[in-house]
Amino acid sequence: MQLGMIGLGRMGANIVRRLLRHGHECVVYNRTAEKVRQLEGEGAIGATTLDAFVDKLATPRAVWVMLPAGEPTEQTIGALAERLQPGDIVIDGGNSYYKDDVRRARLLAERGIGFVDVGTSGGVWGLERGYCLMIGGEEQNVRYLDPLLVALAPGRGEIPSTPGREGLDARAEMGYLHCGLVGGGHFVKMVHNGIEYGLMQAYAEGFDILRGAGAPELPEGHRYHFNLADVAEVWRRGSVVSSWLLDLSAIALAGDPQLAGYSGFVQDSGEGRWTVAAALEEGVSAEVLSAALYTRFRSRQEHTFAEKVLSAMRFQFGGHTEHTGAGG
Amino acid sequence: MQLGMIGLGRMGANIVRRLLRHGHECVVYNRTAEKVRQLEGEGAIGATTLDAFVDKLATPRAVWVMLPAGEPTEQTIGALAERLQPGDIVIDGGNSYYKDDVRRARLLAERGIGFVDVGTSGGVWGLERGYCLMIGGEEQNVRYLDPLLVALAPGRGEIPSTPGREGLDARAEMGYLHCGLVGGGHFVKMVHNGIEYGLMQAYAEGFDILRGAGAPELPEGHRYHFNLADVAEVWRRGSVVSSWLLDLSAIALAGDPQLAGYSGFVQDSGEGRWTVAAALEEGVSAEVLSAALYTRFRSRQEHTFAEKVLSAMRFQFGGHTEHTGAGG
Amino acid sequence: MQLGMIGLGRMGANIVRRLLRHGHECVVYNRTAEKVRQLEGEGAIGATTLDAFVDKLATPRAVWVMLPAGEPTEQTIGALAERLQPGDIVIDGGNSYYKDDVRRARLLAERGIGFVDVGTSGGVWGLERGYCLMIGGEEQNVRYLDPLLVALAPGRGEIPSTPGREGLDARAEMGYLHCGLVGGGHFVKMVHNGIEYGLMQAYAEGFDILRGAGAPELPEGHRYHFNLADVAEVWRRGSVVSSWLLDLSAIALAGDPQLAGYSGFVQDSGEGRWTVAAALEEGVSAEVLSAALYTRFRSRQEHTFAEKVLSAMRFQFGGHTEHTGAGG
Amino acid sequence: MQLGMIGLGRMGANIVRRLLRHGHECVVYNRTAEKVRQLEGEGAIGATTLDAFVDKLATPRAVWVMLPAGEPTEQTIGALAERLQPGDIVIDGGNSYYKDDVRRARLLAERGIGFVDVGTSGGVWGLERGYCLMIGGEEQNVRYLDPLLVALAPGRGEIPSTPGREGLDARAEMGYLHCGLVGGGHFVKMVHNGIEYGLMQAYAEGFDILRGAGAPELPEGHRYHFNLADVAEVWRRGSVVSSWLLDLSAIALAGDPQLAGYSGFVQDSGEGRWTVAAALEEGVSAEVLSAALYTRFRSRQEHTFAEKVLSAMRFQFGGHTEHTGAGG
Repeated sequence: MQLGMIGLGRMGANIVRRLLRHGHECVVYNRTAEKVRQLEGEGAIGATTLDAFVDKLATPRAVWVMLPAGEPTEQTIGALAERLQPGDIVIDGGNSYYKDDVRRARLLAERGIGFVDVGTSGGVWGLERGYCLMIGGEEQNVRYLDPLLVALAPGRGEIPSTPGREGLDARAEMGYLHCGLVGGGHFVKMVHNGIEYGLMQAYAEGFDILRGAGAPELPEGHRYHFNLADVAEVWRRGSVVSSWLLDLSAIALAGDPQLAGYSGFVQDSGEGRWTVAAALEEGVSAEVLSAALYTRFRSRQEHTFAEKVLSAMRFQFGGHTEHTGAGG
Repeated sequence: MQLGMIGLGRMGANIVRRLLRHGHECVVYNRTAEKVRQLEGEGAIGATTLDAFVDKLATPRAVWVMLPAGEPTEQTIGALAERLQPGDIVIDGGNSYYKDDVRRARLLAERGIGFVDVGTSGGVWGLERGYCLMIGGEEQNVRYLDPLLVALAPGRGEIPSTPGREGLDARAEMGYLHCGLVGGGHFVKMVHNGIEYGLMQAYAEGFDILRGAGAPELPEGHRYHFNLADVAEVWRRGSVVSSWLLDLSAIALAGDPQLAGYSGFVQDSGEGRWTVAAALEEGVSAEVLSAALYTRFRSRQEHTFAEKVLSAMRFQFGGHTEHTGAGG
Repeated sequence: MQLGMIGLGRMGANIVRRLLRHGHECVVYNRTAEKVRQLEGEGAIGATTLDAFVDKLATPRAVWVMLPAGEPTEQTIGALAERLQPGDIVIDGGNSYYKDDVRRARLLAERGIGFVDVGTSGGVWGLERGYCLMIGGEEQNVRYLDPLLVALAPGRGEIPSTPGREGLDARAEMGYLHCGLVGGGHFVKMVHNGIEYGLMQAYAEGFDILRGAGAPELPEGHRYHFNLADVAEVWRRGSVVSSWLLDLSAIALAGDPQLAGYSGFVQDSGEGRWTVAAALEEGVSAEVLSAALYTRFRSRQEHTFAEKVLSAMRFQFGGHTEHTGAGG
Repeated sequence: MQLGMIGLGRMGANIVRRLLRHGHECVVYNRTAEKVRQLEGEGAIGATTLDAFVDKLATPRAVWVMLPAGEPTEQTIGALAERLQPGDIVIDGGNSYYKDDVRRARLLAERGIGFVDVGTSGGVWGLERGYCLMIGGEEQNVRYLDPLLVALAPGRGEIPSTPGREGLDARAEMGYLHCGLVGGGHFVKMVHNGIEYGLMQAYAEGFDILRGAGAPELPEGHRYHFNLADVAEVWRRGSVVSSWLLDLSAIALAGDPQLAGYSGFVQDSGEGRWTVAAALEEGVSAEVLSAALYTRFRSRQEHTFAEKVLSAMRFQFGGHTEHTGAGG
C-alpha cells in the first residue's frame, strides 16, 4: 500500500522506514530537502514541494502528517485541504489536541476528505519495537488504512495473552486500536501521556526517598546508602512495580548512579495539561496526574512567585528572614 | 502572680514584657547574660545561673521554658526536673512535639512536678495584640496559671461575638483555651501551623496565577497586568478571602509589588511535618496541607533528585535532551 | 444615578436594595414578575418585559446583568445587544468566564455598546457589609459607573490602613478596584474563588485532623477529644490563621459541633475549575488550589471509577478482596 | 539447605513450596495445625509447637518469620529470642517497619542471634514467577542464606539485560538484592510499595478520565465511549506505559469492563504511610505518593469531616444548601 508522509523528523522518518521494511511504498515530503534525499536513499519516493508530493500519490491518497502540534500541523492540513480530492484521507499522527482534530475533520469533510487521528507511542524505540497506535476516525477510513497500521504496530510479540479477551477487538492485541470517532485516538494518547507523567513521578519520588535515606542528618542506624542502580534492577524481576519505564530507569542509573549528567529541567508536552483540562471538564479528580504535571512546571523555574509570597508573609508575621530555621 | 522565664529570645522576652505590663512579677534566665540584664532594666528579676533562677522563685514555682524544640528544651526540662520540687509546674511554651510533651510530663510527674504545654501564636505582633494560647495539661495546673494566661491572651477586643456560644468555654473568647490533656495544647498549635501553611500556599498560588496572567506568550486580549498590591487591598474589604494573612500580604505587596527583595527560599518548622504525620496516623486525607509543605521542601533545592530521574527517563525513551520542547 | 438590573435573585435584589439605600434609582426586570413587584414595593421601578425595561432607562443606559453564568447570561446579553444604543453600558456582575467577557465585549463594541465585568464577592452578608467589587473594562466606562460602585463597596470601615499604600489606587481601600481590561474583573474574581477553595480546604483538613485525634485506635495518652467550637473560637483572636472564613467556621461549630446537619456533599462553581485551567495555560504550579477542587469533585461521588480500578488491580495481583486488611 | 518457616499464610506457604521444589528442606510451624499438616503432605517437616519447631532445626538455625507486621511479628521474634542460640539467624520476611527491624536486631544481637529483613514482592504470582527479594542485614548473614534466596528469586528469565551493568551486583539481575544494613531491605520494600500506590493511582485516574469522556453533559463531537479493556490491551504493546500493573488492569477490564464487581473500597498497608513519613523526615517532596495514599484513605469513608466543614462554611457565607448548583 502507498502512504504519503509529511514531516521527516525522527518519528516521521522512522515510520517511513518501518513501512518500507514491510514492503509498503512511501512518498515523502519535508520542509528541508536534505531529509527527503536521505529517505530517497533508503527507498522512499521524495518530493520537494507539496504540489509535487500530492501529484506523486495515487488516489485515493493517504497522507500522514507528522509535525509538531499547533501551527505547523494547522497550516499543513489547511494546505492539504486545498490540494486533495474527495476520497483522500489525511492522517494526523502527531500530538494534536483532540478538539483541534474535530474542528479540522469538519473542515476537510466539507470537501469530502477523510480524517484519521493517530496517537503514536514508542519514541526512538518504535522503529524496532513497533509503535503503539491509538486511532480515531470513521470506521471505513480506519479499515482502509489497516495494512499500514498493522505494519507499524508491534504485533503480538512474546507478550502473554490476556485471559478473557475472547470476542474483544483483536487489533488491540496487535498493538493498534480504533478507539472511536474523530479525536478519539488523540484523546486516548493524551491520557496515555498523562498517565505516563504520573508513573514517572511515582518512580522519581521513590528514588528520591531512597537517596534521601542517606542524608547525614538522619540518626545512625536509620541511615542507608542504597545503590539505586541495583534497586532499579532487582525491581525488574518479579516485583509489582516492574515496567518499561523502570527498565529505562535501570539503564540510566546503571550508567550514571548519581544522574549527575542531568540538571533536572523537565519539559512537559501539551498532553499532560490537556489531560488535566479534560479531568476538569469531566469533574474527575486527577490528584496524581496534576501533581506530576506541576512538578515539571516547577522544575523549570529557579523560584516561583508563590514562594516569594510565602517568604514575604513570613517576614511580615514573624520577622523571619529567609534561610533562618524558625518557622510558623 | 510570679512567673519564671527561661529563654529570652524574641518570644520569651516579649511574653515577659507583656506580663510585666499587666503587673505580674517575672524572674528571668537566659544562657547569655546580656538579655537578662536588658530585661532587668525593664523591671524583671534576673538570674545568671539556673540554680539562682530556681532559688529566686517562690514555691510552688511556675517556670515557663521558651526555647527551640528538641535538644535545648529537652536538656532544660531535664535540668529542671533535678532542681524543682513537688507542686512546681513546668510550662513548655515553645513548639515541642506533643509526643515529647507526654514523655516529659511522665518524667516530671514521677517527681510530683506538674507540666503544662502552651502553643503560642502571635509572632512579633503578640506583645501588642496579645498571644493566642492553646494549652494542654491537667485542669488544676491550668487553672492555677490562669492569671498569667489571661494577661498574655488578646482578650475579647473589638472582634464580634460568635452567635450561639452561650454555655461554651468563655476563655476561648478571650483568646486562650485549655484544649485537653498534656500535649493537647501543642497538638492544636501544630494543626494551627499546618493550616497556616495551607492558607499561605493558597494565597501564594493565587497571586502567582494573577501575575502569570501577564505572560507574553498568552494571546492578546486574554493577557492582564494586574497590580497585586491593589488586588490584595481590595480583597481586605467585604471579600470571602479576607484574613490576617491577607492583611500581611497587602503590606508586603504595597512596599514591593514584585517581591523582588525575597528569593523565595522558604523554611518549614516541625509543625507542618508533624501535622501530616498525625494525618497519616489517623488515616485522614490531608491533600492541601501536604502539598503546601512539599512546596516548601522544594523551594530550598535547586533541583530535586526526582527531577533528574524524570530527565533521565525522558532521555532514555525519547532521546529528549533537557531544555528541548517536545515532551512525553 | 440610575441603574437597570436584570436578574433579581438574592444577589441582584440585594444589590438593588443597597443602591436604593444610597439614593440611587433602580429599574428592575426579572423573568418572573413576582420579584419585580417585591422590589417595586421597596422603591424600585419595575418592568415586566425586556423592551419595557430598556424604555424606562435614561440614556446612556447602565444595565447590570446578574444571572447565572452560561446560557442565561449569554442570551440576555444577546437580547440587550439588539435593544441598546451606542453609548450604553452592559455590566456583567455574575460569575462569567473571562474569555466569554472578551468575546461578548467585542460583539457589543461592534454596536458601540460598552461592557464592564464586575466580580462580586460578599454573599448574603453583602447587603450590610458591602460587596467587594473586582472590575474589568475600559477606563471611561468604569469611571462613569463610579457613583454606583462606591455605593456598593464596603468602604474603608474600621479596617486598619495598610502602611505604604500612598500613591496607590485609593479605590482599593474602599473595597472596589478597576483591575484591568475587559475580563480582568472576572479573572481576579475567579482567582479569588480559587484561593477561597484552598483556604476552606486548609481549615477543613485541620479540623478533620483535630477530630481524628480522638480515634479509639490511637494509643492512650496520645488521644485527644478537642472541642472544635472552642478551638475555632480561640484562633479568632491573635492567631495567624484568623480570617472571615474562620469566623464562619466558629459560628457553624458553635451551633453544631459535630456538623451532623451537613452531609458533606460540596458543589464547586466554575471559578475553581477556571482557576486551575488558567494555571495550566500559564504553566503555574497550583498544587493546593487543584487539590482543594478535587476534594469537592470527590465529595459528590459514592465511589470513583478510579477507586474501582485500584480494587481490581489489587485483586489481580494479590488476591486481595476489598475490606481486607493486608495491602500492596 | 534447611529453613524453618513460621507462618503458613498464602505467602509463607508458597515460599515453602518454592523452596521444596528447589530441593531445600523446610521445617514449618503455624498457629493452627491444619496448615502444618497440609505442608507436611507436600514434603515439609511439621512442628506443632514452637519448642518442637526449634528442636527440629539443625544449628545454626535459619528461621523465617512470615507473619503480619506489628504484634504477631513482635511476639514471635521475642519468643524466638528466648529459644534460639548464638549463631542462629532470624529472617523477617513480612512487611515490618524498618525502625522495628533495627530495634529487634539489637535485641537479638545481645544474645548473639543474627537478623535479616527481607522485603518480599510477588503476591500470589510469586510461587511460579519467583519473589523479588529486598534484603537488609549483615553481609555474612545474607551470604549464608544465599542458597535459599537464589531459589526464591525469579532469576534472569527472559528479561533483557540492562546495558552498562558490568561490575554491578549480579544478584540484582537474579531478582534479589542485599540492599544494606538491617532495615534496609524493608526500607526498599516500603518505598517499592509507595511507588506502587503512585503507579496504581496514575492508571486509575487515567481510566477514570477515559470513562468520563462519555459523560452525557459533554458536548456532542467531544464525547467518546471508549472500550477500556481494549485501551488497556493496546497499551501493553510498544507503549511507554506498559507494565505489569497494566497487564493486570487489562485482565480485570477484559473480564468486567465496568468493574461492576468492585465497590472501590481500597485498603492501604503500612508501607504507603511509612513511605510518606520517610519523605517527611528527609524533607523530600512526595506529592504523588502522598496523593495516591490519600485517595485510599478517602475511598473508605462515606464523607469526611473535612467535607462537612466545607458544607458548613458554604452555608454560612452564602446560604448555600448542599446539592444546589451555585458555588463559591
